Amino acid sequence: MNFCSQCGSAALSFEVPRGDNRSRYVCGHCGTVHYTNPKIVTGCLPLWDGKVLLARRSIAPRYGFWNVPSGYMENGETVEEGACREVREEVEASVTNIRLHTLYSLPHINQVYIHFLGDLKGPGAFGVGEESLEARLFAEEDVPWEEIAFTSSTFSLRRFFEDQKKGQAQVHIGQLLPPGQK
Amino acid sequence: MNFCSQCGSAALSFEVPRGDNRSRYVCGHCGTVHYTNPKIVTGCLPLWDGKVLLARRSIAPRYGFWNVPSGYMENGETVEEGACREVREEVEASVTNIRLHTLYSLPHINQVYIHFLGDLKGPGAFGVGEESLEARLFAEEDVPWEEIAFTSSTFSLRRFFEDQKKGQAQVHIGQLLPPGQK
Repeated sequence: MNFCSQCGSAALSFEVPRGDNRSRYVCGHCGTVHYTNPKIVTGCLPLWDGKVLLARRSIAPRYGFWNVPSGYMENGETVEEGACREVREEVEASVTNIRLHTLYSLPHINQVYIHFLGDLKGPGAFGVGEESLEARLFAEEDVPWEEIAFTSSTFSLRRFFEDQKKGQAQVHIGQLLPPGQK
Repeated sequence: MNFCSQCGSAALSFEVPRGDNRSRYVCGHCGTVHYTNPKIVTGCLPLWDGKVLLARRSIAPRYGFWNVPSGYMENGETVEEGACREVREEVEASVTNIRLHTLYSLPHINQVYIHFLGDLKGPGAFGVGEESLEARLFAEEDVPWEEIAFTSSTFSLRRFFEDQKKGQAQVHIGQLLPPGQK
């Protein structure tokens, strides 16, 4: 942030506003406090017959790696609607019976991943969206664990297959801290 | 948004950027696309002996109304850490055994509430923070339902007492749509 988006002034400082307890960008001209907050990445594991549908990314970052269909939640939608939209966009599928699966924080990059489980309508009821190179259903033994794009996806996949073996779904909370912390 | 925060230009338009499918503020001078996304409000129902600790707000909006301790999630923290921070700030308490309770979307105002349950350390182990007028433990029959600040709090409180009667906690997903929708 170089300029105040309210008044256009370059007189920005990074300081603790009066009555606050953490630093924000504050405009020295008009006084506007500019808050930034974590973003939600919402997604869904589309399921069929105990297998999970993954998409291989055709975009950066992590081009060519496999991922749970997911992306930034947009204004004007619910978390679940965002997850279903990402499934439509990335693997051209619709899912039903949506249930919450994981809540995963990445505090060092100000992101929160929220993944659901959802049922596909058939074993071939999907396609390949613009941001994907390929889409495929994976049983646990076939998952390319070394080629998964993000730790949030690895976390959700591991928990899904564990729950499946136990025969009991539950909601899992996780986090990734940068190397060296905790 | 009146000015580009990157270059200071006033040449902003609200349009669909190339390769995107929804309108964003785009700078006609430097080309920066300004994304805005929903914010997370994180909070916790502090529990003791089947009762819930609520705080009466000393700030706008909803001054004087009762609320589940909660507030905007900040950069650099996990969702759970944010919830515990809000409990410390608003009712000067610490909670243990944090578990996820509700995920509640308000798409018309671009907010997602995430509420946890947590255990207080004793029936009097709390205080009154700067943003509160008062804090009090409520059994279901004592909750001032007409004086609850936000629907997200009403949703979380109703689900908590229902689960308590069933003897089974679960995670609940909800949403508030503006009047007239669905």
